[in-house]
Amino acid sequence: MSQNIYDDPDFFKEYLKYDRQKLGLVGAPEWPSVQAILPDLKGKRVIDLGCGLGWFCRYAIEYGAKSVLGIDISEAMLAKAQSFPTDSAIEYQLADLEDLELPSSLYDFAFSSLAFHYVADFTRLINVVYNSLQSKSSFIFTIEHPIYMSSLSRHLLTDEKGSKFWPVSKYAIEGQRNIDWLDHKVVKYHRTIGTTLNTLINVGFTILHVEEWKPTEEQLAEHPELEKELERPIFLTIKAFKA
Amino acid sequence: MSQNIYDDPDFFKEYLKYDRQKLGLVGAPEWPSVQAILPDLKGKRVIDLGCGLGWFCRYAIEYGAKSVLGIDISEAMLAKAQSFPTDSAIEYQLADLEDLELPSSLYDFAFSSLAFHYVADFTRLINVVYNSLQSKSSFIFTIEHPIYMSSLSRHLLTDEKGSKFWPVSKYAIEGQRNIDWLDHKVVKYHRTIGTTLNTLINVGFTILHVEEWKPTEEQLAEHPELEKELERPIFLTIKAFKA
Repeated sequence: MSQNIYDDPDFFKEYLKYDRQKLGLVGAPEWPSVQAILPDLKGKRVIDLGCGLGWFCRYAIEYGAKSVLGIDISEAMLAKAQSFPTDSAIEYQLADLEDLELPSSLYDFAFSSLAFHYVADFTRLINVVYNSLQSKSSFIFTIEHPIYMSSLSRHLLTDEKGSKFWPVSKYAIEGQRNIDWLDHKVVKYHRTIGTTLNTLINVGFTILHVEEWKPTEEQLAEHPELEKELERPIFLTIKAFKA
Repeated sequence: MSQNIYDDPDFFKEYLKYDRQKLGLVGAPEWPSVQAILPDLKGKRVIDLGCGLGWFCRYAIEYGAKSVLGIDISEAMLAKAQSFPTDSAIEYQLADLEDLELPSSLYDFAFSSLAFHYVADFTRLINVVYNSLQSKSSFIFTIEHPIYMSSLSRHLLTDEKGSKFWPVSKYAIEGQRNIDWLDHKVVKYHRTIGTTLNTLINVGFTILHVEEWKPTEEQLAEHPELEKELERPIFLTIKAFKA
């Protein structure tokens, strides 16, 4: 069983204050860059791995998906997801991505936002996703960027000249990283970009797009505090295809 | 015309002292990881973009390549390459990767080692390489890793606790970076991993392998000074395929 901090009421209360939970997809700065590479969802059977409050599940239905299965490890998260006005085409399922099993060749599109960096056995998970997709299906996921994860600090530092930098450390050493988040100990798994991409390729996926999110000019104009995101990438988005 | 520091005699004299120039491929720590993903060279028409002293050109012939075209911007480099015992199947050509033109669908394998990060117009170059390859051909190149290039320092720094780190800075801001190397000003071009991969994909290549080189256990045992290479990746190797 993987770690599940979301069912800790203290953590969850703080977690719900993030814009991406309160406002949904529009509260996530990387969302426009993800939306830009989404396939047409019309008529698709969609799976959302680590669906959280179900924001993407509802989006997919709104944009014509035939059905959505939202999977999450947290009961609190799914209870909250179900408290939104819902659609009978959305099904939520409590499951751990670490030992998830899925039917073969059932889905037309797989999605995941900021969940896979909590999974220890990435190869197993990618095999499960691959097998669950029909051929000619795409798969988009975001993770915490490996540069962001393999750092001595969770904040940008400043040198004597006032230049900001991100102290990358032990990038080549993969595996568990213990991180403090909202006063809780969180376990994440660092994998290099190379390992992440090669795992997808070796399982059979074709890489269609790799996005190291950065704010747009418009985002920077509206939210000057996003300028720090130019120093180091915080999110990595990958679009892959099962031929 | 691109910058050509190699034809500066002071620079070139110092440059030739590197193990990868003196000893050839075995003097390059990343070589075993590149060799491991090489296709069978037997009977292949090979092109080496930025061939330097021709070490890979001679290797390709030794391993059965039918012919090799080695391209480099430096007369000094090509003169030195031609001073080695050579083979009539190797042809050297003075050319700038920035405005290189190549015949269509002629080569079976394209190779480049640590040259493309000097090229401003990467999209143009990748188009030229793609068009020069026959279908069912592969393409392997190494570049300075974008994490290595987008740094405030050319050396690892150490924090108060003695932990080493690499100060990544302005990763998302692509373009020219001016660097001091062997007491010379060198112009390089920073592109993110995302841009590098998406350029290949958009031109038509399929990504087969992405390697962020790190030393093996054996290399670390023999050369303990390589331990610093675990902190941040110095080289990025990409293997792509023209279907």
